[in-house]
Amino acid sequence: MIESSVIEAQNAKRAADLDADFDALGAKLARRGVDINALVERAKTFGVAVPSWGTGTGGTRFARFPGAGEPRDIFDKLDDCGVIQTLTQATPTVSLHIPWDKADPSDLLAKAAQYGLSFDAMNSNTFQDQPDQAQSYKFGSLSHTDAATRAQAVEHNLECIEIGQSLGSKALTVWIGDGANFPGQTHMGRQFERYLASMKEIYKGLPDDWRIFSEHKIYEPAFYSTVVQDWGSSLLTAQELGDKAMCLVDLGHHAPNVNIEMIVSRLIHAGKLGGFHFNDSKYGDDDLDSGTIEPYRLFLVWNELVDAQATSGLDLAHMIDQSHNVTDPIESLMISAIEIQRAFVQASLVDRDALKGYQDDNDALMASATLRGAFRTDVEPILARARLETGGAIDPIMTYRASGYRAQVASVRPKVSGAGGGIV
Amino acid sequence: MIESSVIEAQNAKRAADLDADFDALGAKLARRGVDINALVERAKTFGVAVPSWGTGTGGTRFARFPGAGEPRDIFDKLDDCGVIQTLTQATPTVSLHIPWDKADPSDLLAKAAQYGLSFDAMNSNTFQDQPDQAQSYKFGSLSHTDAATRAQAVEHNLECIEIGQSLGSKALTVWIGDGANFPGQTHMGRQFERYLASMKEIYKGLPDDWRIFSEHKIYEPAFYSTVVQDWGSSLLTAQELGDKAMCLVDLGHHAPNVNIEMIVSRLIHAGKLGGFHFNDSKYGDDDLDSGTIEPYRLFLVWNELVDAQATSGLDLAHMIDQSHNVTDPIESLMISAIEIQRAFVQASLVDRDALKGYQDDNDALMASATLRGAFRTDVEPILARARLETGGAIDPIMTYRASGYRAQVASVRPKVSGAGGGIV
Amino acid sequence: MIESSVIEAQNAKRAADLDADFDALGAKLARRGVDINALVERAKTFGVAVPSWGTGTGGTRFARFPGAGEPRDIFDKLDDCGVIQTLTQATPTVSLHIPWDKADPSDLLAKAAQYGLSFDAMNSNTFQDQPDQAQSYKFGSLSHTDAATRAQAVEHNLECIEIGQSLGSKALTVWIGDGANFPGQTHMGRQFERYLASMKEIYKGLPDDWRIFSEHKIYEPAFYSTVVQDWGSSLLTAQELGDKAMCLVDLGHHAPNVNIEMIVSRLIHAGKLGGFHFNDSKYGDDDLDSGTIEPYRLFLVWNELVDAQATSGLDLAHMIDQSHNVTDPIESLMISAIEIQRAFVQASLVDRDALKGYQDDNDALMASATLRGAFRTDVEPILARARLETGGAIDPIMTYRASGYRAQVASVRPKVSGAGGGIV
Amino acid sequence: MIESSVIEAQNAKRAADLDADFDALGAKLARRGVDINALVERAKTFGVAVPSWGTGTGGTRFARFPGAGEPRDIFDKLDDCGVIQTLTQATPTVSLHIPWDKADPSDLLAKAAQYGLSFDAMNSNTFQDQPDQAQSYKFGSLSHTDAATRAQAVEHNLECIEIGQSLGSKALTVWIGDGANFPGQTHMGRQFERYLASMKEIYKGLPDDWRIFSEHKIYEPAFYSTVVQDWGSSLLTAQELGDKAMCLVDLGHHAPNVNIEMIVSRLIHAGKLGGFHFNDSKYGDDDLDSGTIEPYRLFLVWNELVDAQATSGLDLAHMIDQSHNVTDPIESLMISAIEIQRAFVQASLVDRDALKGYQDDNDALMASATLRGAFRTDVEPILARARLETGGAIDPIMTYRASGYRAQVASVRPKVSGAGGGIV
Repeated sequence: MIESSVIEAQNAKRAADLDADFDALGAKLARRGVDINALVERAKTFGVAVPSWGTGTGGTRFARFPGAGEPRDIFDKLDDCGVIQTLTQATPTVSLHIPWDKADPSDLLAKAAQYGLSFDAMNSNTFQDQPDQAQSYKFGSLSHTDAATRAQAVEHNLECIEIGQSLGSKALTVWIGDGANFPGQTHMGRQFERYLASMKEIYKGLPDDWRIFSEHKIYEPAFYSTVVQDWGSSLLTAQELGDKAMCLVDLGHHAPNVNIEMIVSRLIHAGKLGGFHFNDSKYGDDDLDSGTIEPYRLFLVWNELVDAQATSGLDLAHMIDQSHNVTDPIESLMISAIEIQRAFVQASLVDRDALKGYQDDNDALMASATLRGAFRTDVEPILARARLETGGAIDPIMTYRASGYRAQVASVRPKVSGAGGGIV
Repeated sequence: MIESSVIEAQNAKRAADLDADFDALGAKLARRGVDINALVERAKTFGVAVPSWGTGTGGTRFARFPGAGEPRDIFDKLDDCGVIQTLTQATPTVSLHIPWDKADPSDLLAKAAQYGLSFDAMNSNTFQDQPDQAQSYKFGSLSHTDAATRAQAVEHNLECIEIGQSLGSKALTVWIGDGANFPGQTHMGRQFERYLASMKEIYKGLPDDWRIFSEHKIYEPAFYSTVVQDWGSSLLTAQELGDKAMCLVDLGHHAPNVNIEMIVSRLIHAGKLGGFHFNDSKYGDDDLDSGTIEPYRLFLVWNELVDAQATSGLDLAHMIDQSHNVTDPIESLMISAIEIQRAFVQASLVDRDALKGYQDDNDALMASATLRGAFRTDVEPILARARLETGGAIDPIMTYRASGYRAQVASVRPKVSGAGGGIV
Repeated sequence: MIESSVIEAQNAKRAADLDADFDALGAKLARRGVDINALVERAKTFGVAVPSWGTGTGGTRFARFPGAGEPRDIFDKLDDCGVIQTLTQATPTVSLHIPWDKADPSDLLAKAAQYGLSFDAMNSNTFQDQPDQAQSYKFGSLSHTDAATRAQAVEHNLECIEIGQSLGSKALTVWIGDGANFPGQTHMGRQFERYLASMKEIYKGLPDDWRIFSEHKIYEPAFYSTVVQDWGSSLLTAQELGDKAMCLVDLGHHAPNVNIEMIVSRLIHAGKLGGFHFNDSKYGDDDLDSGTIEPYRLFLVWNELVDAQATSGLDLAHMIDQSHNVTDPIESLMISAIEIQRAFVQASLVDRDALKGYQDDNDALMASATLRGAFRTDVEPILARARLETGGAIDPIMTYRASGYRAQVASVRPKVSGAGGGIV
Repeated sequence: MIESSVIEAQNAKRAADLDADFDALGAKLARRGVDINALVERAKTFGVAVPSWGTGTGGTRFARFPGAGEPRDIFDKLDDCGVIQTLTQATPTVSLHIPWDKADPSDLLAKAAQYGLSFDAMNSNTFQDQPDQAQSYKFGSLSHTDAATRAQAVEHNLECIEIGQSLGSKALTVWIGDGANFPGQTHMGRQFERYLASMKEIYKGLPDDWRIFSEHKIYEPAFYSTVVQDWGSSLLTAQELGDKAMCLVDLGHHAPNVNIEMIVSRLIHAGKLGGFHFNDSKYGDDDLDSGTIEPYRLFLVWNELVDAQATSGLDLAHMIDQSHNVTDPIESLMISAIEIQRAFVQASLVDRDALKGYQDDNDALMASATLRGAFRTDVEPILARARLETGGAIDPIMTYRASGYRAQVASVRPKVSGAGGGIV
């Protein structure tokens, strides 16, 4: 844990600068008729879930280079999540992955309570084989040609719901790697029908106050076709399942050049947007830290979300979904949470009345400038003040480094040997 | 017109070789239990519509380099379409574009009858301004913020239906360029709602035995967002309109890397695939000749279509949609029609029982090899025989060149001056 | 022309706010040890060339929707360029396109002098046919199979040099559309050799104090292959020509996902980076306003340029290269110039010593944060102050609109009829 | 090993059909003036190297699903390579990967001799950490900021050369994963300079009759930038090193839409094409079986290679570089070798005189048709005859399955447990 004395000492060093920056920004926003304190309160309402597995060092197809003090189990992971929440005050929930995080529910709840954390959407895993598994997922899971394999995958998802119920979760996210590596390997229509039939079985077991999220991805691990390859297939799935079924969009799961904020808008139109997985990417599903590659794209996604929240009360599950290969995962998750929160606050700054006026007048230049003006506003003082007022750190990264947390856990968590990637 | 004596003379030169090739292929197919003559009959059932405007030389954003003997009007275009049908016997219909092709319906019908041609889907145009137009489409048409502009665009589409009715057409294809060049220029949700409202107005005017096709395209002429940008938005459109509304897929209108045959499969699943526009492309909507860049992709699309036709009686509108910049358009249209027909026949050769067996067994290698085996079969003798038996040319290109048609029309159709592209 | 009284009146309205913002930013930067006034001086050194043709409304392949008061000739264009420079003080040069801008050199010099403008790199045009042209460029220009066509294209480039010499220009930019629409249409190796031979002829005519820029583009107007398709081919060209030959990078001319700032870095390494064309894009060569789609990418390009200027004295030609379809071109060019200047100043704010330390320590997180910190700094007060101190407008767009310039020129420049695009 | 009696029995079943198909094709080619027997002889000259690691089942970032009878070590791998060569007669060489394949050279030579195999280019590995390694490659290898790490990586490459010399290899292929996951993580210019300096050290240790291949890849495992990201950087590397340094092109290592055959052409022009890695892909570096996704692209690559071999005596290293996740690797490698050989023979069928004529005349349509005509020719009888005459199998897959080889090795090679991918 991070001692509050460490946080206070670090904050003390930065308080005066923050005050100055905050006042200057406050004055500037006031001239535009914007109340900075309202934005601070708004920033405090923000929360994004941390994926439990994100606290470990990820790998690529080629190799995995472990870091120091990697979490040994879900309890270590929750300790790390606690650090992130303590310092950023922006990540009040954790998203579990089954079977990786299986443990006694009461122990999980107790550990989470230590940090004021609760549990977000559950994630099932039918893209890997577990040691004790009867049927292999080598050729698919929920859409497999073999009924027994499909039944096993359905059963696993039902178990995830059951575990989630004991933890207070209210949603199940389903992402599968099923697909094909060759034209002809599968009959794409029949495979989709099998997938839908399996999903309907899972849906039957979904409690009334739960939602099920269908997550699409264009490719990987299948390299020719993927069952739920884009938002169109995800939409068909959510439509066929029913009202509790929604679509989840991951920023890195699209074809090159695709306008992702537009997909957000379309799913909002269809009443089927249920969640968003944040990360950043340049090429494929790169799972890089949010806001580090194309920060304006992140802002444009939030521009749609904030707009919809204002007009339709959109209720969305947000999760960070990244793989950290060359950084301390705790640091990367904090940076990501802050960047996502930053875009949320910047999007909240958009003058929507003015924007609507420009849009109605087809004043493309000023409409565009209105968005850029909000994006350009350096809202760091707002974020820092929100953290400060809720017990977090003005500068989470520097405070974390000052705390010596990583060295401390490295001394008790044994070194993990460098496992290879998928390449033999 | 192409004199039948020219065709006969040319065919005579090639008849012996064709017989030899046909017999060899027949023997080979017979060993696989396939009757070559049944394939010839199947090839004869094939037809793809020629777009009237495809007979002119296209241009790019940068320039247009006119060719000799370009058609002056729709009647010249129909003459050119007649040549294509005469020689290939694979293009029995023509698709008109309004207002470019407006003319007295009885004159159109008479001219078409000369060549045994009929009229396929009508195409509206609200992506360009016409000289006498009250409202400009600079900032959109069916989705414009201004009600009068939307009404004008709706009215134009209704007129297209009316014209089509007088010509025996049974479908309207709607593609619009509406979108935005800047983030923020339009509210993407409200813009889509305006689009849907306009489409519903058009749908009201659709005769009972007509279909309306929604055609998507990822970008161009709008470069940040497009109202109907992908098959998901197209599907939402068709779903909201009703049973007579279907989606049309154009091979060149997708993001890079997208699996197009999978979109075909998904729309078939949804009961919403209505048509396909053929061409080929390497980068964007390049509108190159069908089958000249990625012939296997064309085959894989047909593999889905033939499969669905066999199992569900899929009834699809097919059209060539290309722009010919460096070739004689008549030659390119003939090549395209033949390549599309080739893929159709090759896909008809797939041993679907064997394929299903491999798929059920997850024998990815043999499933894939089954498709490649069909694709690898050189079905040219089947295509040539089908043409020969229906009065066409064994070698349409060489026969066309021998006929001197281009030089002949060049002598009566005045030379068009080289207009620039959109670049000033 | 924009009356200085208009500028002064507009500036007066915004002076107090600017002072407040400037002081707040100055205080903040001072805490980091950065002198804001030095940055203002640095901003004043910035200049980017305006392309003469950018002052007209562009079009797409589908249509061109003309705007009011479009320039009739190069003198109108220079008037518009004068407005841009007067208000932004960031565009002291104009880049001409031949033959579009052919006129008496002394008249051009006189008109430019009116606004304190001078002439940047010359641009040749062998991608369109001119009315009086002996050989057509339909199948290529500098790389054409026909020697007479190549000679004509070489001659045109030599004429551009000659005109440029009379105007004080010191560079020739060569971009050609030569390529192919079909595999096999050209022999790619021999075509490249013909191109190089032609370029060598042009190079022979290059004055000693001139440079020739080779500009690559992945596709369009050719849709299968392009002679100078990427920086590799551009580099080979510059290497074979000699020391006066350099490469020019246009932000929109790359394959999807390509890391453009890395190309900048590699060409700097090779000693062959000569110029950069600014714009923005999401899909292809969209030619959208600079900094409106991916502002961070623009910053990252400048991060490389500023770094290289500091260490190696890189001397680069900068030009805006955009097509404005839905905005007033003067407004778009001003926005672009400002966004480019913004990225330049932000990149100048990067703490390069700290960055180098993080890089040497493989502290990826802090290295990345260092760049983001500079990018996040809202340097608008610096840009506005630089404009104010050099006679420009604090807010160029609002000042331009207040001036009524567009309405004024629309009253004397006749309305241009809406020409179609390349689509027939 | 595959008993020759098995091969003979299988061939006997197919001999009559092959004769019939061969004669029919021979007659058809004869009418075009092509001697089928010359093509059979040409097919026999073909050889592509099998990568030793390709005989194991690959994995993705997400999981690895092992197959039955996976090779335990390089000797098992050589047994599998022996099967491939015995049946296809198209893979006379094996490419080793160090340290995976380290063993006593005389044992390796003895085992290879058993199957008539020899050793192709050596592959170094500095993208993974080995258990006993002093310096980690987490942040790079040949381009690492730390001199000791670079020295270790150089040393490893020199060892690869040494091993290769003892095995009769004549080339070293260098591919590194060095790059960055964040803008700013590395100084791209200095990183490249460090890479070049390391490569020069390796080059110094290169025997006179060896070549060193620089292999580029756009991304993965680094997701923001990669040191040798494209052929431009690879070319700079080969140029700076010297005459023995060449570029190697892998089909899956490019940005979307890139014209790969054009890169082949440009490197041939530069005198720097040294090798080609075959596979196929739809999205990224998918490493799918050659010729199964875009067979025409494979043909177009060969079209350039065959053309260059004819005119300039190009001497190229060919290797299959794939990862087999859902098939028996031996089967996939045989299919790939055959598809690569097929494209080679088809490209050899192109009538280059006719093609040159069409190109010189800008008859794009017939030039394109000339390539398609060669591609459409089903050369399977030529390939099968070449195999038959050299002791291989008419149908390698069916013969392999009939042999029971996989079951046989599965009984002696222990089952590998399913390792996870890089994802924690």
